This record gives sequence, structure tokens and C-alpha cells, in this order.
Amino acid sequence: IIKNNVQRLIPGDEKSESAKRAFAIRRNIGLVFSGGPAPGGHNVIAGLYDEAKKYNPESRIFGFLSGPDGILESKYIEITQSLVDTYRNMGGFSMIKTGRTKIDSKNKMELALKTCMELELDALVVIGGDDSNTNAAFLAQQFVGSGIKVIGVPKTIDGDIQVKTDDSRILCAISFGFHSAAMSFSQNISNLTTDAGSAIKYWHICKVMGRVASHLALECAFQTHANLTLIGEELADYTDQQRIEKARENGTVDYTAYGMTLRHLSRVICDTIVRRAASGKNFGVMIIPEGVLEFINEIQVFIIKLNKIIAEYNHTHDINFHTSFPTLNDKLEYLRRLTRGMGDKDKFPIWNLRDDDLFDQLPSFFQEGLLVERDTHGNFQFSQVKTENIIMDMVKEYLTILKEQGKYKVGIEHSYFKSTMQLANIIPDKFATAIFKDPKAEYLIIKESIISLKTLKQALVNSELIGSDDAVPQSIIQIFKKSDPKFKTQTHFYGYDGRGADPTHFDCNYTYNLGMTAFHLIANGATGQMAAIRNLEKKFDKWEPIGIPIAKLMHLEERNGKLELVIEKSLVDLNSNAFRVFKTLRDEWQAAESNQDRYRRPGPVRFTGNTEDDSPIMLRLNSI
Amino acid sequence: IIKNNVQRLIPGDEKSESAKRAFAIRRNIGLVFSGGPAPGGHNVIAGLYDEAKKYNPESRIFGFLSGPDGILESKYIEITQSLVDTYRNMGGFSMIKTGRTKIDSKNKMELALKTCMELELDALVVIGGDDSNTNAAFLAQQFVGSGIKVIGVPKTIDGDIQVKTDDSRILCAISFGFHSAAMSFSQNISNLTTDAGSAIKYWHICKVMGRVASHLALECAFQTHANLTLIGEELADYTDQQRIEKARENGTVDYTAYGMTLRHLSRVICDTIVRRAASGKNFGVMIIPEGVLEFINEIQVFIIKLNKIIAEYNHTHDINFHTSFPTLNDKLEYLRRLTRGMGDKDKFPIWNLRDDDLFDQLPSFFQEGLLVERDTHGNFQFSQVKTENIIMDMVKEYLTILKEQGKYKVGIEHSYFKSTMQLANIIPDKFATAIFKDPKAEYLIIKESIISLKTLKQALVNSELIGSDDAVPQSIIQIFKKSDPKFKTQTHFYGYDGRGADPTHFDCNYTYNLGMTAFHLIANGATGQMAAIRNLEKKFDKWEPIGIPIAKLMHLEERNGKLELVIEKSLVDLNSNAFRVFKTLRDEWQAAESNQDRYRRPGPVRFTGNTEDDSPIMLRLNSI
Repeated sequence: IIKNNVQRLIPGDEKSESAKRAFAIRRNIGLVFSGGPAPGGHNVIAGLYDEAKKYNPESRIFGFLSGPDGILESKYIEITQSLVDTYRNMGGFSMIKTGRTKIDSKNKMELALKTCMELELDALVVIGGDDSNTNAAFLAQQFVGSGIKVIGVPKTIDGDIQVKTDDSRILCAISFGFHSAAMSFSQNISNLTTDAGSAIKYWHICKVMGRVASHLALECAFQTHANLTLIGEELADYTDQQRIEKARENGTVDYTAYGMTLRHLSRVICDTIVRRAASGKNFGVMIIPEGVLEFINEIQVFIIKLNKIIAEYNHTHDINFHTSFPTLNDKLEYLRRLTRGMGDKDKFPIWNLRDDDLFDQLPSFFQEGLLVERDTHGNFQFSQVKTENIIMDMVKEYLTILKEQGKYKVGIEHSYFKSTMQLANIIPDKFATAIFKDPKAEYLIIKESIISLKTLKQALVNSELIGSDDAVPQSIIQIFKKSDPKFKTQTHFYGYDGRGADPTHFDCNYTYNLGMTAFHLIANGATGQMAAIRNLEKKFDKWEPIGIPIAKLMHLEERNGKLELVIEKSLVDLNSNAFRVFKTLRDEWQAAESNQDRYRRPGPVRFTGNTEDDSPIMLRLNSI
Repeated sequence: IIKNNVQRLIPGDEKSESAKRAFAIRRNIGLVFSGGPAPGGHNVIAGLYDEAKKYNPESRIFGFLSGPDGILESKYIEITQSLVDTYRNMGGFSMIKTGRTKIDSKNKMELALKTCMELELDALVVIGGDDSNTNAAFLAQQFVGSGIKVIGVPKTIDGDIQVKTDDSRILCAISFGFHSAAMSFSQNISNLTTDAGSAIKYWHICKVMGRVASHLALECAFQTHANLTLIGEELADYTDQQRIEKARENGTVDYTAYGMTLRHLSRVICDTIVRRAASGKNFGVMIIPEGVLEFINEIQVFIIKLNKIIAEYNHTHDINFHTSFPTLNDKLEYLRRLTRGMGDKDKFPIWNLRDDDLFDQLPSFFQEGLLVERDTHGNFQFSQVKTENIIMDMVKEYLTILKEQGKYKVGIEHSYFKSTMQLANIIPDKFATAIFKDPKAEYLIIKESIISLKTLKQALVNSELIGSDDAVPQSIIQIFKKSDPKFKTQTHFYGYDGRGADPTHFDCNYTYNLGMTAFHLIANGATGQMAAIRNLEKKFDKWEPIGIPIAKLMHLEERNGKLELVIEKSLVDLNSNAFRVFKTLRDEWQAAESNQDRYRRPGPVRFTGNTEDDSPIMLRLNSI
């Protein structure tokens, strides 16, 4: 299992007589969904069913109910032609449901084997994410003696299962469900771009799913051309050159110069908001990946430390941390005790005074978030934290400061200013010089010193445009008020709705072929492999079904405070074509200068057209 | 203006020579969007433009920029063929944008007239909601002397502009944008029904826009068959018969018996959750209208009182209430002062001790919400309050109590119990009698007295199925654990995304015809009328363009603490066919018995098919 290689599949008509016989064996195949739903799952079943029945109509397919629990508890249904036809091309995993139980102990492995043997299975197909495919590999190992094959199918809307060879040839470009979820999110986000540009009143803040990687956010950026999209991987990669330089001069190293801080991120966001406002656009759409905080320097440290503290507590005390410390105050008290209990100098203090100090500065709802119960994999549940609120609270705070400093202003269109002055019979030039930074600019920005009606009057008096007893002309007041920005936001979270969307034409075809591939792998005698399609970005006749040995994808990772073998999640590669194209185009999408917004409306999920014309943009860019 | 009647429009080929001449006059027509965007607005422009140019290619159409501000400040563009072609059938109001300024003072009226006269307008078309159409009527009155006609067009996704004659014949069945928004929301909500039934883990709580009326929630219920939909109008209509009876026996009247309280509502929701869980479905989808709290007895009182207090403060002090009292504590302190300052016995205390006491019991984020800044119409901004959290917090609290009482349990499928017992070689019958309420039911409910492993063991020992030193069989523990519900929710808000959606085929045609109708009204010499289409629910050849006199729709309403003439918003009529059909079918959709979920997937906004086959379900039901 560990040593097998990428499996190439031979088309039916090129097969040897012995291979043909192997395909025609009557088989029992079980299949199970694991983890959150993703569009296209039903077509994996359909592809597997159709292909198995094609080679032997006597073969039987069983679907385990409600995820891995169905295997452990021997709860299943037989998949019939009528079930397959009912659910073909439909979203969700409604036919047999899904669950999050992990088959991760010796006892559970044995229970699973018992169920599979009683059902006289020839093979088990596990449709799931990185963890579930990891599980599939371990099950394959466990089942070797029994002769039952285990095949994985790469499912996750997050798009973080991507496999390359050592020499960077793509084996699995993307997991299924990614495209459908991205299109569903993008339809909603593009509706918000329309709203933003019509009501010219709101910044729409859209958090999109993606617990670890920012692939979905990146794809939504390509699909919608939203004004600002945060890519977590880029934030983590950031280095503060000034600080590094300064440290070098002092002959030291400043570790805090690597990776972006929450404070710095809020400054970057404010920069876009302020520059768009200066060009008359005090509105916009921003995309934030659900897991962005995990890429922020100080948060990363907190999560690692708290994960460890909670896991260690659970391990040592045989009682759950959250049961022992139900309220936030209880938890904070425990942390404080950790810092105080540092008398023992041999022990490296995991939670030191600096941590405690930094942690104290966070808003309590975020503290609570960081201390919240971990999911069944021991992961921090980012979906439970209002990431967008944490970031936007800091943004709002800083915008208030910028406004007080006179640096956050709405730019006034030159023609608007001129016609307003004409209506009021005021000759614009002198007034423009008195109140605007650059009176010749296309968008006129009120001087930083003018931040109130009082300072406005002072400027006019100083320029001798009005006497100190005169009133400020109404039209000038009108211009001043127009230049005074309100920052209004609406936040949105797109995730579960996209997860439950119907599959796109691309995902429909992709998943049906994954199902067929899974059958071919079984018929070829493979086990511990993940079904995949190579050349996904090319025309359909170039698609190549393969099997990828799962064991080779694994690496060691800390889970629940213990090192475990798992499949590495693929993050957004900052050297990929997709990211580099994004970097090239994002200034244009930001429209922070006088250019127009370049919003794009991808429209709804469609079932027409060629698959290859409507696949993830990221996929096509990365294949160039 | 006040006395004119419903205007019937005569088709071009039936017109008299004089009418034909009237149509062919060269005209300048201005148009303006007012209020939030709604899908179809661009087609109103297209219909008006095409029809005006058809009768006289020399006629010119001007679009005022950024809403009524464009009129006040004389900012406009001329609508060209190329602009019309670019935006035809597109969502949003991006072409000329919109704004929320009200032309509600004498000064503003005069400014508006000045702009319109300088542009030599023959007519002004105001595309907006109830307030904007009210405004249109006042402008029409103001413009009478100048000969400039003012025509309104009924726009609001909330669907609360509906007009009937006194004898209940429908003149305007629905405002434009309603169908598109409902379809956009419904696509997302139906995705969540798929997710709910696949992951079998979450209750998805969907708040949908609709500040006052619950039409959008009702239409989404028809489109998706979500398990529970709250209709605000029904809650307000609720009467507590027990209390009324009791008061009658005592010879008193209990005013608190009329209308549903927040607490009672949370009980009603819990009932659905508990009953679905009992039939094995500890998940679901719930739709909550944005404005539901306004229909809740005690909240209604708070809003009226606080609106008055804030308006009075602003009026008396010439400084804004929110400027004087920036923090929640400041505001609470002011309210407390009001109750204390009741020494003056002549003054009826608007905020009494009982109010203060009740208000104190609300969570502080909701207090803050109730005291938040009012919108420009002086309305309470419900979209700023997390309605869904207020309700769900109470639901969660009560579910915890029900769980402790053993009343909230997941029902175990009979066949599941049997096969689990068989696997464990346990004869099911005796155990079933010991632990289940009704051992013969299709879904088995654990007895209320069994709420822990300890009480479970006790029940088995009492039934002499195990000795007091024996362990509880693993399979029984497995059944018990399955019956123990976790209540997990995900909340969603759909509003702005639907507002910015592309128009449905129905809205595309409806709005284009509204635009044409607006031109016909102008050419017929009408003013102060609202363009409408009668027989909207029928086949297209039965559609009948009419003009509805706006003044007749008005009634007195309190705004900013003052009585004003406004168009009455149409609420969901509890005697309408639509509501009665909803009441008949909702038990089935709730699926709180052993029946299956009946979720419906309406799919995305489509541009194909017959208009009349894809119009609001509510509309079709109400026309039967």
C-alpha cells in the first residue's frame, strides 16, 4: 500500500482477456460519505453504480447511512437504479446522508472490517476530504488481509486537496464541489457588487468558507472582481522590510517582522477604503476567507498554544477542559494560573505573561472564540468565530482616527463641483484653491485641515473669500457635507448555502467520472488509492482517470496535541499563475483610483455549455 | 389630483386623432430612483425610453443621479439608446444609482421644481417604495401650476405596495422586485434545506428582508417548503384564549392576552424542534422575517415609546439624542431619569417603572438595538438588530430546560433499534419496554425519566434486565447516545444579495411594461398617479396597464413622533388564499411527524419560459 504508484487506467477496449475477466467479476461494493456535503456527491454514486452494473449487472452497491457511523453500526441501504436516477445531478448528500465520525481506533477498525465482511464487500469507497482519505488509507492497510479494497474520492468545497508529482505535474488539480460552491458564493457576492454600486452606501463584507486555505476566496475574486479579497497565505508570507532592516542594523533579529499582524491588516484594509472614497466611491465589496485569522501572526501563536493547553488538560485530567471551565472567566482564570505557576523553572511556560497581556487586549467575544470547543479533529472551529467582526471592528476604529485627522474624505467629482458652483453663481477657482488639496484633480479632496464647518469657515476667511462675519455659502457647505464619509457595512457569510448548491456542469461531469474511476481502480485490484482525473482543465477527451496512492501524500501534523499522519492540505501557492494573475489585476478591481469598478456577474449555476468552458478560473490559469 | 380616478389606458390603434397628436408631442421626461435597489429598475427606464422614442424620436429622457439628491442638485444624465441597451434586463440601479433623500420640505420642493423647469421637463417619473410614491403625490400637487406631471412606479422587494379597490378587486397585486428577491432568497434557502438533510446536524435559521410585512418570508415558504416560517402578522393576531377566559371569569380584561409574546414565540419554535427530533429529524430550516419583532406585543410597545422619546428629545433639545447619549449606559441612564422624573403628576409618564423593569430583562445587545439611531424616515432600523439571535437565544435556553426534563429526545427508528439489538444478540422487546415510552412506535422515544447513563442503568435494573453490578450493554448505550440531541444552529441573513439580483423573467416583463405605462399616463395627461398593471397573475395578453391615484392610498401615520400622510403598507392578509394555503400545508412541510421532509428546490433566477408560469406563488394563489 505504502509503496504503490500512480495507477494508470486502461480503457475497456484495450484490455487484455484476463483484465476483461477481472472487470466482469460479480462484486459487492460499499460506499460512504464522510464530512460536510459537497455538490456532486450523488454523481460519484451514479458513476460507480453505472460502471459496476455495466460490467456485471449482478454486482451490488451498498450505501452506508449517515457517514462512517453507518459502517460501524452496519446501517446501509442497497443503491438501486431508481435511487440513482432520483438523485443524479442533484446537490447534497441527501440519498444516504453523511457524518463526521472518524474510524480512528483499533476497535472501530475491527467493527468496520466486521461490517464489510458480513456484507461480503469486495471494496469500500470513501468519499471525503483530506482526513477521510487519510482514514481510507489506514482502512486499506487494515483490510489487506481480508482482500477488501478501499478507494478514496477527493471531496471538499474548500479545494484544498490538490496533488502534484515531485516534478510539479498536476495529478489532482482540485477536489470536487469546489467549483459549485465558488459559483454559488460568487452569484451572491456579485449581487452585492450590484447593490453596492446602486445604493452607493455600503461596504459589503463577505466571509466565505474555507477553514484553512483561501482557494474559495481567490476563485470568488476571479468570478466577481470584488474590490478587495484577502488571501490568508499572502498575509502569512508578508515581511516588514523596515523592521528587518532596523534589526539588522542593531545586529539582532526581529521575529515579529515576519507575517502580518491583525493591526497591520486593518491598516491595509483602511488604505483601500480611504483611497476608494477619495475617488468618489465610498462603498465596495470585500471578500474575507473564513480561516484568514489562522494566517495572522499573533493569532496563529494563540491557537497553537491554546490547542496544546486544552489538549494537555484533557489528557491529564480525564475530564474535558470545557466542562471544568464552563465560562470565559473560568478559562481566563486558568490561563492566568498557568502564567503564575511558572515557579518551576525547568518547565518551559507555554502561556507566558506576554501572551496573557496580548490576549487581554482582544475583545472578549474573540477570546471566547479562541477558547471555544475544538471540533472532533481537535481543530479550532473558525466558523464559530465572527472573523469579519474582529477585523472590521479594528478597521472602524482606525477609520475614525483617519477621519479625525482629515485623511478619510469622499472625493468630489470635478464636474460636480463646477456645476454646483455655477448653480450658486460662485466662480469656482478661488474656492477650489482654498478648500481642496489639488484644485485641478479629477476628484477633489478637501484639505486635511478642514474637518468641520468651523475649520471650513476658517479656511475661507483665511483666503479672504468671505469676511469673518459672513456665512459660508450653502453650496460650499453642500460640497463639504458630500465629502464627509459615513462608513456603513453589511456583513455576510456564504458557506452552507454553497455547500448545499446544485453541482455545476463541470462538477456533474467530474464527479460522475470520479465514480467510474473508483470502479476501474477496484476492478484493477487497487487499494489505498484515491480516484482522480488528470487534465481536468483540458477538453473532455483529454481527461485521464488515474489512481493516486494516498499514503504518499501524508505528512506528520499535530492534532489534539499529538503528532499524526495526515494528508497535507494544499494552500494557495503564491507562485502559482492564478495568484500572480490575481496580484496583477487586483489594483484594477480595487478601483481605488479614478477608474470604474470592474465587477463581473458570473450568473447562476448552469447545466448547459461545454464543461471545459465553465470550470474554475483558478484551474485554467494554473494550467497555462 | 386628490379626486382623480383609476386611469384606464387606451391602446394606440384605438386612439382618437386628438389623442394620437397628444402622444406625438416632443417631451422631456425626467426619472429618478428612490430608496433601496430592486431588480427590474433598469427595465422601467427601458420601457419608458422605448415608448417615448416610439411616439416621438425627438423626445428626451433624463435620469437624475444618486436619487432625489440629483433633482435637488440638478445632477442628471441624458439616457441614450446605448445606455438602455447596456442595462436592459440587468439587476440593480447602477445606471443612475439611487439615494434616500426625501423631498419633504417647502425649500426642497421649490428646488425640485426649479431643476425640472430649467430642464423643461414635461414629466417626472419617481421609481420608489411607499414613501417615495407618497412624495410623488405631493410633488404632483406642488407642480400642478407648472404643468409638469409626476408619475410614481411601485418598487420594493418587500412587496408591501399592494392596492385593491374598496370592493376588493386587485389594482396592483405586487410591487416590482419582490419576485426576484424572493427567488434569490429561495435559491439560497433551498440550498440550506439540502445541506440540512445531508449533514443532519444543523438547524439553519434564515432571516429574510422585509422590514414591516412578512410577504417575502411567506413567498420563500412556498418556494422552499422550509420546516418553519414565522409570519409576523399571524403572531400579532394571536390571542391567548385561556387568559381571556380567566379574565372574563374574574370580570376583568387581560390586555396581555392579545398578541404573542417573545417568550411564547420561543415556546412555539421549541415545539417544532422537539417534535421533529422525536421523529428522528434533529435538523431543519427556519425562516424568520426581518421585521418579526415588530409584531411582538412587548417589543411593539418599546419601539413606539422609544421612537417618541427620541423624537421628542431631538425636537426639544435641538441636539441629536444619540450625540447627547453616545453609549448604551448613557441612554439607559436617561430612561431611568424619565421614570424618576415622574414627580410632575400632570404629565403622563411615557416611560414608567414597569417599562424600565421589562427593558432591564432584555439582553444588552438588544437594548442597544432598540436604542439605535433611526433611519431617515424615523423608523426603527430592524436590519441593524440581530432578530434571529434574540429569538434563538430564548429558544436555546428553553431547549436546555426541556432536555433536562427529558422532553427533548431524538427518536430512534424502530428498524434501527431492532437491527442494533440483533447485532448485539439482545432480544429487543424487554429492553424496549424498559427504556421507551411506546415500544411499538415507528420512532422510539426514550422515557422522560432517563436523562443520563445513570438513570438509564437504573431503568434496566428496575426492569430486572441487568443486575445492579452489571454494566449497561454497549448497544443500549449506543441507542441512548443517539437519542441525546445536540442543538446546533447556523444563522443566515438574505437581503442585500437578493436586492442586487438579476430580475426574473416575470420582473423583466413587469417592469418594462410599468415603464411603458408610465409614458402612457404622461401622454394621457395624468399626474399624481402610480403606474400599475392589472391582471398580473394572468396570461400576458390579459395584462392591463392602469394608473392609480396615489392620494387615495394615503392615511395618517406617526413618523418621527409626528402624524404624516403616507401610503399604507400592505401586510400579509390572514384571510388571503395565500396565507390560508400556507396554514393548510405547513404541517406537512414541518414534517414533525414521521413523514418525510418536502423540501422544494426552485432553482436559480431564469429568463426562459412563460412569464405567467413563473410568477410569485402568492400572486397566483390570491387570484384564485
